[in-house]
Amino acid sequence: MPSNGAKQPLLPVDDALERILKGLAPSQVDESPLAAAVGRTLSRDIQSDLSLPPAPVSSMDGYAVRAEDCTGEKPQLTRVGESAAGHPWQGRLGAGEAVRIFTGAFIPANSDAVVLQEDVDASSESEGARITIHEPPHSGQFIRPAGLDVSAGDTILRKNSLLSARAISLAASAGLATLPVWRQPHIGILSTGDELVLPGETPAPGQIVSSNAIYLAAFVQASGGIPIDLGIARDRAGAMLDHVRKAPVPLDMIVTSGGASVGTHDHIVSDLQEAGSALNFWKIAMRPGKPLIHGMIDGVPLLGLPGNPVSTAVCATVFLGPAIARLSGHDYVPHQISAEITCELQPNDRRQDYLRAVLEYDVDGLPLVTPARKQDSSMVSIFANANALIIRPPFDPSIAAGDRVTVMPLAPLL
Amino acid sequence: MPSNGAKQPLLPVDDALERILKGLAPSQVDESPLAAAVGRTLSRDIQSDLSLPPAPVSSMDGYAVRAEDCTGEKPQLTRVGESAAGHPWQGRLGAGEAVRIFTGAFIPANSDAVVLQEDVDASSESEGARITIHEPPHSGQFIRPAGLDVSAGDTILRKNSLLSARAISLAASAGLATLPVWRQPHIGILSTGDELVLPGETPAPGQIVSSNAIYLAAFVQASGGIPIDLGIARDRAGAMLDHVRKAPVPLDMIVTSGGASVGTHDHIVSDLQEAGSALNFWKIAMRPGKPLIHGMIDGVPLLGLPGNPVSTAVCATVFLGPAIARLSGHDYVPHQISAEITCELQPNDRRQDYLRAVLEYDVDGLPLVTPARKQDSSMVSIFANANALIIRPPFDPSIAAGDRVTVMPLAPLL
Repeated sequence: MPSNGAKQPLLPVDDALERILKGLAPSQVDESPLAAAVGRTLSRDIQSDLSLPPAPVSSMDGYAVRAEDCTGEKPQLTRVGESAAGHPWQGRLGAGEAVRIFTGAFIPANSDAVVLQEDVDASSESEGARITIHEPPHSGQFIRPAGLDVSAGDTILRKNSLLSARAISLAASAGLATLPVWRQPHIGILSTGDELVLPGETPAPGQIVSSNAIYLAAFVQASGGIPIDLGIARDRAGAMLDHVRKAPVPLDMIVTSGGASVGTHDHIVSDLQEAGSALNFWKIAMRPGKPLIHGMIDGVPLLGLPGNPVSTAVCATVFLGPAIARLSGHDYVPHQISAEITCELQPNDRRQDYLRAVLEYDVDGLPLVTPARKQDSSMVSIFANANALIIRPPFDPSIAAGDRVTVMPLAPLL
Repeated sequence: MPSNGAKQPLLPVDDALERILKGLAPSQVDESPLAAAVGRTLSRDIQSDLSLPPAPVSSMDGYAVRAEDCTGEKPQLTRVGESAAGHPWQGRLGAGEAVRIFTGAFIPANSDAVVLQEDVDASSESEGARITIHEPPHSGQFIRPAGLDVSAGDTILRKNSLLSARAISLAASAGLATLPVWRQPHIGILSTGDELVLPGETPAPGQIVSSNAIYLAAFVQASGGIPIDLGIARDRAGAMLDHVRKAPVPLDMIVTSGGASVGTHDHIVSDLQEAGSALNFWKIAMRPGKPLIHGMIDGVPLLGLPGNPVSTAVCATVFLGPAIARLSGHDYVPHQISAEITCELQPNDRRQDYLRAVLEYDVDGLPLVTPARKQDSSMVSIFANANALIIRPPFDPSIAAGDRVTVMPLAPLL
């Protein structure tokens, strides 16, 4: 936004984030088949339909017995049946009787203990076999009581939690076939600028490839949103509104990138004003990625990122990722860790700095972080090879090698 | 596998993993559009088609000048044009001339420095304006040379690297429209056992819901593979082969779960022998998840996981995840960190233990890990709510609160 020479105070990153996130929430619910629900967010608490286990089961391979029958010198029992997972023994255990049993199988009625197969001598593996007990059991031994894991009606998964494969395993075990999840947000992605050509086209002198739209589509997808391509708006009044209003589906958010070229800034201003938007041009106290546009088009929130690819990516990480999380129904919690830095850093100025860095773990598993030697925000290759950002607050004093710094690991796909 | 009572030595986890991974590799290549390539793995090194920047560009908003013209007392220049991103100035700078320039714009021919707009007085924003220089520049000032980021022909992305959104941004900037990626592996998922019913069906007494197939489908998908549902093979000879041979696409690996019920074990043995397989029944020195089957069916590697859902999930994390990574083309590097434990642990026995745990970060960002109070391998709810596994080697001595332990964080979607 070169034409804006006016001085204005810099907005702290956290204030900008709070304003962007304000009011963002999902509204619509899908009922998803279990296997397709991985990565989605629950729209309500989930209760179990079943108890797990539904009845007492054996935790070992051995023999189900009555503990009271196993006292005295070398007690002997008679094998009267077999209970296996999927094939329970239907009878009721009588005095002096034992049932061969396997891990996970139902405990027969009137049995109260399992003896390990290693702790008996069995005359055969057939019914009628004589079972000699060497280690008398106590009542309840190697029995998992009904509901040990979950009781029917228990809340097993919480509203607004992200569904992992293991959460889905629990839902399946609990008798559910589908889960209610928040609908994935549709994020419109619009590039702006006369200088842009599509990937694969050869740029003429002065032109550059529109890499930001591709990056943002991949970022939105890997963040759980659905990217909607709104194309490239050229530098003329109304172009942006035209592209946004031709979106094939209702949008939950619009993200623009670009506006580095002269004139774009003014067109965005006039377009947003025409759409009746309360718009804000923020200069954020951060590096890279100072200018940011925030507003609404036809009631849909708009986030305007800088044109520089590295600034776009850092702003997407800091602002867009949390916004997609909110629109997807789960709370944004920044994943930041503390790591030892391997080199010194000069004092920081008034901007919060996001240094592209490589995070590694030493032989003891402790995190070590090394900032890239060049932090030029035009260098896409350095950002592509980073796996973390070192976050330095405004006016951070100088840092020595071995000091601890705050690090935001970059998700492997972001 | 209850019928196998024979004692055999326990196989160390690392040995089992090495044998499972041996020979696994991708073979086929897809040419993927950029935005769809996120999460895929490159099948070869990638070179840049372009230099970035393609020509010297300005790193600031200001005026492009010849440094030699800016000496003496308050040098004055004449504005002769404007260079913006996408709209380069086509001329050649003469003596005493300046060109208005913006960040990212091409430096005019014969210009060798940029003066910040803050460091001049301009009589107007029009051509012919008088530009008074307050801070004489040095040659090269605020100019990014051609190829600063990348030179045409440079290797920008490495074979077998996982493609992040930022790697795709780099590829787009470098002029590429598609990327060669390894084909995603097709992983056949087969449940075995008479006791299983499909999710959503009400289990009869003795039956349980087949949660493992759902879990494995979600796990495979979140790991970058394509799950292929092979159904439930009942406990009869030939059932397993029938299901595998009806797979709708060629498979890269088969994963089975179950076999806890009596008879399944024998049927798997006879089926694998009929398919001419060299099969192995391993007892692994790990907890949970001791029994594991490894073999081939019709030339396709088979991994047979235990039937217990928690054992299945831990074995999937330890063995299947790395196998999918190998089949997808990227090397498996276990992500393990060191964390402070918040409670004491008793000495470990001869099995490598994988304790379900919650990993948190304290106010300084340092990792703290707390094992679940109950480690019963039948408890799916505990695994679903864990976000990490504490790995204890065989014969690990007792541990005190505050000691450091090795932790494998669970990926958010796994």
